[in-house]
Amino acid sequence: MALITAQEYLDSIEKLTPRVYVGGKWATNLLEHPVTRSMVLANAAIYSLAEDPQNQAVMTTVSHLTGQPINRNLHVARSIHDLDMRQEMALLTSQTVGTCNYRCVGCDAINGLAATTWEMDRDLGTKYNETFGKWLVHAQDKDLAVSGAITDAKGDRKKRPSQQEDLDVHVHLVEKRSDGIVVRGFKVSQSGAIGSHETLVLPGGALKEGEEDFALAFAVPNGAPGITYICQYNAYSAERELLCDETELGNPVYGQRETSTMVFDNVFIPWDRVFLCGETKYCGRLVSRFAKTHRMNCGGACKVGFADLIIGATMLAAEYNGVDKVPHVQEKIVDMVRLSETSHACAIAAAMRGREEPKGSGVFLPDDLFGNAAKLNIAHGFWEILKNAGDIGGGLVVTMPRLKDLEDPEVGPLLKKAFKSAAPAEKRLKVAKFLQHWAAGLHGAGTWHGAGAPQTQRFMISVLTDFDAKKKMAKKIMGMEDQ
Amino acid sequence: MALITAQEYLDSIEKLTPRVYVGGKWATNLLEHPVTRSMVLANAAIYSLAEDPQNQAVMTTVSHLTGQPINRNLHVARSIHDLDMRQEMALLTSQTVGTCNYRCVGCDAINGLAATTWEMDRDLGTKYNETFGKWLVHAQDKDLAVSGAITDAKGDRKKRPSQQEDLDVHVHLVEKRSDGIVVRGFKVSQSGAIGSHETLVLPGGALKEGEEDFALAFAVPNGAPGITYICQYNAYSAERELLCDETELGNPVYGQRETSTMVFDNVFIPWDRVFLCGETKYCGRLVSRFAKTHRMNCGGACKVGFADLIIGATMLAAEYNGVDKVPHVQEKIVDMVRLSETSHACAIAAAMRGREEPKGSGVFLPDDLFGNAAKLNIAHGFWEILKNAGDIGGGLVVTMPRLKDLEDPEVGPLLKKAFKSAAPAEKRLKVAKFLQHWAAGLHGAGTWHGAGAPQTQRFMISVLTDFDAKKKMAKKIMGMEDQ
Amino acid sequence: MALITAQEYLDSIEKLTPRVYVGGKWATNLLEHPVTRSMVLANAAIYSLAEDPQNQAVMTTVSHLTGQPINRNLHVARSIHDLDMRQEMALLTSQTVGTCNYRCVGCDAINGLAATTWEMDRDLGTKYNETFGKWLVHAQDKDLAVSGAITDAKGDRKKRPSQQEDLDVHVHLVEKRSDGIVVRGFKVSQSGAIGSHETLVLPGGALKEGEEDFALAFAVPNGAPGITYICQYNAYSAERELLCDETELGNPVYGQRETSTMVFDNVFIPWDRVFLCGETKYCGRLVSRFAKTHRMNCGGACKVGFADLIIGATMLAAEYNGVDKVPHVQEKIVDMVRLSETSHACAIAAAMRGREEPKGSGVFLPDDLFGNAAKLNIAHGFWEILKNAGDIGGGLVVTMPRLKDLEDPEVGPLLKKAFKSAAPAEKRLKVAKFLQHWAAGLHGAGTWHGAGAPQTQRFMISVLTDFDAKKKMAKKIMGMEDQ
Amino acid sequence: MALITAQEYLDSIEKLTPRVYVGGKWATNLLEHPVTRSMVLANAAIYSLAEDPQNQAVMTTVSHLTGQPINRNLHVARSIHDLDMRQEMALLTSQTVGTCNYRCVGCDAINGLAATTWEMDRDLGTKYNETFGKWLVHAQDKDLAVSGAITDAKGDRKKRPSQQEDLDVHVHLVEKRSDGIVVRGFKVSQSGAIGSHETLVLPGGALKEGEEDFALAFAVPNGAPGITYICQYNAYSAERELLCDETELGNPVYGQRETSTMVFDNVFIPWDRVFLCGETKYCGRLVSRFAKTHRMNCGGACKVGFADLIIGATMLAAEYNGVDKVPHVQEKIVDMVRLSETSHACAIAAAMRGREEPKGSGVFLPDDLFGNAAKLNIAHGFWEILKNAGDIGGGLVVTMPRLKDLEDPEVGPLLKKAFKSAAPAEKRLKVAKFLQHWAAGLHGAGTWHGAGAPQTQRFMISVLTDFDAKKKMAKKIMGMEDQ
Repeated sequence: MALITAQEYLDSIEKLTPRVYVGGKWATNLLEHPVTRSMVLANAAIYSLAEDPQNQAVMTTVSHLTGQPINRNLHVARSIHDLDMRQEMALLTSQTVGTCNYRCVGCDAINGLAATTWEMDRDLGTKYNETFGKWLVHAQDKDLAVSGAITDAKGDRKKRPSQQEDLDVHVHLVEKRSDGIVVRGFKVSQSGAIGSHETLVLPGGALKEGEEDFALAFAVPNGAPGITYICQYNAYSAERELLCDETELGNPVYGQRETSTMVFDNVFIPWDRVFLCGETKYCGRLVSRFAKTHRMNCGGACKVGFADLIIGATMLAAEYNGVDKVPHVQEKIVDMVRLSETSHACAIAAAMRGREEPKGSGVFLPDDLFGNAAKLNIAHGFWEILKNAGDIGGGLVVTMPRLKDLEDPEVGPLLKKAFKSAAPAEKRLKVAKFLQHWAAGLHGAGTWHGAGAPQTQRFMISVLTDFDAKKKMAKKIMGMEDQ
Repeated sequence: MALITAQEYLDSIEKLTPRVYVGGKWATNLLEHPVTRSMVLANAAIYSLAEDPQNQAVMTTVSHLTGQPINRNLHVARSIHDLDMRQEMALLTSQTVGTCNYRCVGCDAINGLAATTWEMDRDLGTKYNETFGKWLVHAQDKDLAVSGAITDAKGDRKKRPSQQEDLDVHVHLVEKRSDGIVVRGFKVSQSGAIGSHETLVLPGGALKEGEEDFALAFAVPNGAPGITYICQYNAYSAERELLCDETELGNPVYGQRETSTMVFDNVFIPWDRVFLCGETKYCGRLVSRFAKTHRMNCGGACKVGFADLIIGATMLAAEYNGVDKVPHVQEKIVDMVRLSETSHACAIAAAMRGREEPKGSGVFLPDDLFGNAAKLNIAHGFWEILKNAGDIGGGLVVTMPRLKDLEDPEVGPLLKKAFKSAAPAEKRLKVAKFLQHWAAGLHGAGTWHGAGAPQTQRFMISVLTDFDAKKKMAKKIMGMEDQ
Repeated sequence: MALITAQEYLDSIEKLTPRVYVGGKWATNLLEHPVTRSMVLANAAIYSLAEDPQNQAVMTTVSHLTGQPINRNLHVARSIHDLDMRQEMALLTSQTVGTCNYRCVGCDAINGLAATTWEMDRDLGTKYNETFGKWLVHAQDKDLAVSGAITDAKGDRKKRPSQQEDLDVHVHLVEKRSDGIVVRGFKVSQSGAIGSHETLVLPGGALKEGEEDFALAFAVPNGAPGITYICQYNAYSAERELLCDETELGNPVYGQRETSTMVFDNVFIPWDRVFLCGETKYCGRLVSRFAKTHRMNCGGACKVGFADLIIGATMLAAEYNGVDKVPHVQEKIVDMVRLSETSHACAIAAAMRGREEPKGSGVFLPDDLFGNAAKLNIAHGFWEILKNAGDIGGGLVVTMPRLKDLEDPEVGPLLKKAFKSAAPAEKRLKVAKFLQHWAAGLHGAGTWHGAGAPQTQRFMISVLTDFDAKKKMAKKIMGMEDQ
Repeated sequence: MALITAQEYLDSIEKLTPRVYVGGKWATNLLEHPVTRSMVLANAAIYSLAEDPQNQAVMTTVSHLTGQPINRNLHVARSIHDLDMRQEMALLTSQTVGTCNYRCVGCDAINGLAATTWEMDRDLGTKYNETFGKWLVHAQDKDLAVSGAITDAKGDRKKRPSQQEDLDVHVHLVEKRSDGIVVRGFKVSQSGAIGSHETLVLPGGALKEGEEDFALAFAVPNGAPGITYICQYNAYSAERELLCDETELGNPVYGQRETSTMVFDNVFIPWDRVFLCGETKYCGRLVSRFAKTHRMNCGGACKVGFADLIIGATMLAAEYNGVDKVPHVQEKIVDMVRLSETSHACAIAAAMRGREEPKGSGVFLPDDLFGNAAKLNIAHGFWEILKNAGDIGGGLVVTMPRLKDLEDPEVGPLLKKAFKSAAPAEKRLKVAKFLQHWAAGLHGAGTWHGAGAPQTQRFMISVLTDFDAKKKMAKKIMGMEDQ
């Protein structure tokens, strides 16, 4: 059976025993620790979405490998329509959980690998595509949650991987054996790796000759021997830990985006899970193929879904305060919509101008220029959206008491009197707490860096633009053709 | 034959004798007066484009009425692909002439009329669609240049049309006769009406009951009795008039965007050219259908073509000054690309999310939200692009002498010495003149107002957004469903 | 003695027993509860500053009432120099504590009251100025920490105070007695009221005839019978509560800006502490005088001090990552400086164009237009600064583990390896934690609303600008004088 | 007599016979050629201002050299008050002429020279300060119009002056004689040099050892043998030439900012007019002292005066169209005010934080950081102001006919009917023409480059900011002092 239920996912996770460290504790049960639990429940909600018939067109499709129905998170795009559905999936999942679809990076890694392993086999006569195909059939059959690991710890940004004092700041090859390879190093900022069945590990960027040890792509099951996950921990983690009742929180069930630093301490990877090993020349392409699909989805759809939630809550805040008809409030809400729909337009354009790459591979990738524009625009736009949410949400977003204080026998009645407006205090504070989660939370800076910081998109735009064509057009109209 | 050549167009225009007033003179020959000539040559260039086989997919198509090949400027979009080609045409024409495709407004008016006359006939049992269809076959068969007239003079913005002291500030009905109607009033800012074979006149906006006299849509041939065109006139007009040699100018051949005030002094329109008369209820829809296609094209493609020219010339300026590798110059050029490609993405998304409207009509219109986003983004973005062009172009863009001064026997050699940099003075000044035409010309404010000022797009966004859906999503994630 | 030490302040606070509720608990000792403690320590640091001889010109001055040296937080500005030193004090205190100078609002309330009580006495023959003067001498003599309470809970924003269903949403008069008045209601978002000796309560805005019961200004000691403080509580509060060691936190000692909702439950205020009672006509002026000095200080100096800290830390982050010489990093840091210095310039201009108001009162107030510009600019600028801090700080700002995890015997060594760059992991994480406090904290939205949301400043600019003068200038240059 | 009248200035100019080339003609009489005339009349208006007693505090002062009353344009600032009056003069002159005060650059050059010649004499034992003082007394006594020439033609931006193929792209020394020096080369973008009595020539930037021939500062009278002025020429020049009546134009009397390329063809400068010759080390300081006063004035006051005119005219346009009460119109006008007043605040802060430089010289220069902020802010802000002016001005700003067409017997009455709104067509078109001059003219790009392009100001901010102090503050608050 190629589609599992949310409950089946939860059951499967409960059986896992990875080494997960979160804020001073080892989380022995991912469903019990309040922080890891929020991540796992978000993933479960993504499984749920695929169970709902009205989401079928977006959330599911048919495997080109097996002809079986599969979750779109495990699909290799074979057409423009697939690309379009892919970004619509990113929109829907964000609107539903208000945090990562933790299967998203894995999905985009699958697409990058499908294209690049095909290309390597064609060019080099390797068998990577076949190996990868087998692994993918396995993942599709079991409807696995697959996360993706790209960002290395990097060390000193002025030095290449092989010049680093401590080579472990990049995941690298330790030993090549007959049955597989041994790897070590750090991958950082890994969204949802702790609650996934497998993680696809890709190189962190383009590599040069001589850097073969860093040229690695492979799949690794959660909790493979030698892997440790050290979770992020911040004020929002502490709040979730300290407050007993998750309904007290901004995003009650699904929480923040939870990431971890993945430590690979001489982890063994059998050959049937290795999809690139030493082919430095293909690392840049692999990463850029991953990035072009990820920027479309992350920048032009995922954050648009977040924006929808924020816009909706901001409208509620305006209504509850009795200011929804005030002109400047309406103008600001229009700006929020404009910013988010603009990035969505970039994602749609990226999908619609997508093409088969490499020719003959059957893999479709979105247009890179529009994908980069999607991410670059939302990086700036999301901060603007947060600014406007904080504006219209009002001072309450900053200075509100605890939600639970409303139930305190002494201060509760006072707070209910104090914060009643055009709606009861409970509603106003509930919405304020949600907006606080965004406008005073980690998503501004998180959106900036997710899928690569904007400077990367700027660089890509400078590389992808056909400046010669533009110069030629200008010369023609100026009558400078002969000069 | 349904496609004519540029020369055939020019020949046909030379035979026209409209009353055209330009800066104190009556232009008796449109090809002789340097200002009207630039407009006519721009139109000719659009005809030329359709002659070039490599542009065929974009510039031509097949009439759904006659099955004959036609120029896309006269086509009613019947599919998403048509919408996509329509916006690609807007891109190509702008890249080619650096000013209006003067057939563009007419094309979008044709699409608005095709949808709305169909709807009126369905609802009211009128014969407008049939009448319009016949006129359109005539236009397609002769490959006419058709301009569109929408904006009334408007008078006092605080009053409705019928409350104006002088009713002529809107085009209105004077008399309804058995053979046709008599109309009078002013349409302003009419791009290229002087060099078109016909003009489609639409109402200036939505109308209410009691305003039937302003509810008019019709086609009128250039120079019909009672029509006078009073042309715009500004510094750039004066420069074109004063300098004998058009190669001295920023956009040498095609000039600025040339518009006129069209005066209708009791003009007779026979019934076979009347497409709406008195049906106030359909005016808002007609205009909004026109607008949704025009904003996609104008905002998301036409101005992107201009931006391509400006970016190309800015790159040349940077190279000629020897600063093309300077980081901040490169960053600014990336911004120019980002701004223009973002609007292009909005146009593509508008086309791709287009749909049949009204259902059953066979007419396809683009998505309105993305179309409005395209225009709104470029309105702001174009000023940014001009700012960066002026920056990188350098002080020369502001303080340069006349191009012809380079040929003066005394000062020419001095200027050649003074302005030689990484390229000869001639090249630097030529590019500076082109950039001056943009950065110190009318296109910043023109782009702002063309296809409606941004405040209109903002209003449309507030109307088109499904806020209830967003509020519902937010409530669900907050756990507020039952409240 | 008119200046007390930080220790004397702390001793005096330890003796207080106000009813302070914070996140489900009653804080019986303000120095023990980790949240209230951070607020009190910030205030102590402000006292410390005045002890340092090198800060004397900024932090201290001489009372015009007693001729004794006093803390500038209790001074009425008597000259342009005083206004300049006032804003320099706001800069210095922010640079020192990275949170509120909790005596700041009180200081600006003192200045508003000094001007307005003088004016009322002149106009109405009241004795408010004399009463206020006596209270001020008392505050200066004891070097009291005085907070200011302006913002009412407000209720439904569409209704006037007297139309609210529950009158308590504004602080209002319950009873006027021979020995004083009885008041009740809510003041929200009160910065540092819990750790101040006294609070000056002002009306929340301009009032009309018939709203006399809301026209109140008075001083009330901390913990007066009937007062309850319900503290704000958010993720950062939880983090401070949960983690035992404050060095784990972003702003280790001084924390966030801590506010509370002040509940007045029939609080008795004797006449010698009442400075306005029923004079509705003077409420708008009083609040606007408070606001004009507060916007200068808050917008043009306090937030500039925060920006200095953020810029400094961002530079450190860039150095520790080895990217401080990268052009785009430098460009972004320049923008951070430009934004903050621009607001500082507005504060300086506001001080320098200050004037005596009302004439004869001896009280100097800053220029209002520049003060509003200071606040409006930083409201937007601060979000930009946060964006750039998050950019350069890197993904670590979002996804870092707990600082203390560095000391864990198992994961600590791993984290030290993973996060070493051009500097040790300890330094990088320390700076990332500090930047997280800002870029993922409450100060973006807080800066927006503090001293009034930007829409208020926009309104003030529309009111304060002499548009007639500008129209006249334009007419003159156009030669339209006679028209 | 140290102050002359406007008429005396005009008489003196009429006697001059410089070689002035403008758009293909040699202008034999500066008051007759319509383009040069506008420049001369603007200068005359500056002289007029000083005649008006109500401007005396701003426009005149007392010479510290002679004790006589002088025009402030010839004054060396000796106090903070002088700096403040200096920038207020820049505001007043811009509000009056809507173009350059053509004595402004000369004034700032005088201040740079006063400081730097004093320093050279102190350090090197030269007599430059004495020589300069004598020349200045002469200029003050005759109330000369003095322009300043800084920007060299520069050639290839990648090469130093001495590496250029053609050394003339910088003004340089040809011969040093006993009675003086001989110089040649080009200075470009020289505002108002044609209508000044003298021009102060400064080096174009900092110089290194070995570049002594380019290290030159001197005064040269208008029309000295060997000097040719080649004027800028653009569409606005053509319009002024072609239309007989200057009232037809946007800025009727004073026109655009008129500049020329100054050609020095072996011009002899006697020693009593040479103020620096070969002292490369002092060139950077001289230019930076000029720049720091010029950026304050140009960025923070001159353009603010322009903005006042544009804001005034925009308000008129809104009123004439009947839209002045529309919320979004008012919001945009508030933004125009905010942008311009923000830069003015920077100028005031620059003046107020000014200081004697070098110590002992008696010369006061403004604060550099605030001066650079003033220019940098207005460079961006001015484009925004133009955008908003074009928005509210409406389509008319782009598509209006000639003003004179209103008087045509045939079309005049039609235009009066068409363009009547809440005000007569004459008023609407007059204001539209004025706004066209700005929003579709050269001042956007001109403001960007005047006083140095923004990238220079950005560089200066990076140099002038005390980052170590900020890092130290941040470390202290983080508790990192010992690390």
